[in-house]
Amino acid sequence: MKVLRVRHGDATFYAQLSVEDSTVRCLDRALGLVDPLPLATVAVLPPVTPSKVVCAAGNFRSRLRELGRDATDAPLLFLKPPSAVIGSGQAIVQPRAATRLEAEAELAIVIGRLCRNVAPGDVAKHLFGYACAADVTAADLRTQDETLGRAKGFDTFAPIGPWIETGVEDASALGLRLLVNGRRVQDGNTGDMVVSPFALVSYVSTIMTLLPGDVILSGSPAGPGHIAPGDEVRIEIDGVGVLINTVRAEADAAPLQ
Amino acid sequence: MKVLRVRHGDATFYAQLSVEDSTVRCLDRALGLVDPLPLATVAVLPPVTPSKVVCAAGNFRSRLRELGRDATDAPLLFLKPPSAVIGSGQAIVQPRAATRLEAEAELAIVIGRLCRNVAPGDVAKHLFGYACAADVTAADLRTQDETLGRAKGFDTFAPIGPWIETGVEDASALGLRLLVNGRRVQDGNTGDMVVSPFALVSYVSTIMTLLPGDVILSGSPAGPGHIAPGDEVRIEIDGVGVLINTVRAEADAAPLQ
Repeated sequence: MKVLRVRHGDATFYAQLSVEDSTVRCLDRALGLVDPLPLATVAVLPPVTPSKVVCAAGNFRSRLRELGRDATDAPLLFLKPPSAVIGSGQAIVQPRAATRLEAEAELAIVIGRLCRNVAPGDVAKHLFGYACAADVTAADLRTQDETLGRAKGFDTFAPIGPWIETGVEDASALGLRLLVNGRRVQDGNTGDMVVSPFALVSYVSTIMTLLPGDVILSGSPAGPGHIAPGDEVRIEIDGVGVLINTVRAEADAAPLQ
Repeated sequence: MKVLRVRHGDATFYAQLSVEDSTVRCLDRALGLVDPLPLATVAVLPPVTPSKVVCAAGNFRSRLRELGRDATDAPLLFLKPPSAVIGSGQAIVQPRAATRLEAEAELAIVIGRLCRNVAPGDVAKHLFGYACAADVTAADLRTQDETLGRAKGFDTFAPIGPWIETGVEDASALGLRLLVNGRRVQDGNTGDMVVSPFALVSYVSTIMTLLPGDVILSGSPAGPGHIAPGDEVRIEIDGVGVLINTVRAEADAAPLQ
């Protein structure tokens, strides 16, 4: 099932997408919206409203080779603020503070049930599903930012979407690609992960309580792509979806509040 | 004003604390609780439910000297997950994965109004107030964790409280101290910050949209304190409050979910 989060009139709800006839069906029975709604009549929102976005750095063997690093037992973790999350179709904004952006294709794992210290074999029943994500970085600031809170934390630097795919039985061997303006920049497979999706959720849950809607970005293969204002950034993950965002510059005239 | 977040029966609300007679007065008029409530009849909760906890590393000159580092224009930023937040009186839990904990005294800045790109001179009107905070670290894991997501992100590693003090006119010269089992371990002053509280909020707001209830931990002076199960950790900030937490070990028998 492809689950969108949408707004229709004053109501915001999860809805099942029917690709065949471009309709959505409200999943919140309390709202009484029983008939399918044409997709064109709803506003599609980012599919997640996470309490936290946990990111794994250095979790693909191809990327570690590129960086000349050894694979360790566990990837490094950092967090992106929820304010960085945008949905498909929204703009990635290059901030005034940054001159060079990069994007990386990542599989987003979406938590469905509160969990702590969950064993890898029990992860499946705590998941909502999977989505496509881009990890956007201000590349020119990253070398100064070993803790990554600034370089990867700007507003719009966590595109996730377009929907949550709940029907993926096995996420351990999915092709994932980054295309910039139609040109293939990254071409990898989740089978190249050092720590598999289930093992990664289990690991993170030994550190922090995971809540419904929380997101884990599971790392990216070799070759992050340079992106600039005007570019189209397209993330494809087989069996999950296609996420498309364009890049624009922060308005020079944006007023101080 | 000292603002507590409390639960009374089924209701959770912000309340004004009267230290003189140990009562609280509900600040949510819609609840109709007009009479003062004895403090003993409410459960005191963590005073914040942030969408993000942004932390500044290396923002005190005394700490930078201790580490042999130069002061830069801007501190490094990292995030703690909201799942790490606890209130005064709750236990800091040493996880099974860590053998050595440290605590640092920090001034927590609590945001009151949504802001982005706010000028330092306009920060005051976007603040809710200030609180005491401890930045807890798994010291034995930190050297492996340059991005700090694990070493500083465990559940209970962000004690904040006991209340939000809204009456601080000038937070740029406040004494702050860490005491472990009554012994003074850190003794500093916010005047030692490289980037002052207002300038720090302004800086963070150039990166990410700040929401009401968001917290910025503004860094810590020299001499983080080692803490261990059984210890009492006490953070004092002049004019703000006193935050007290004890440390316990994660139960060995805690079941996997």
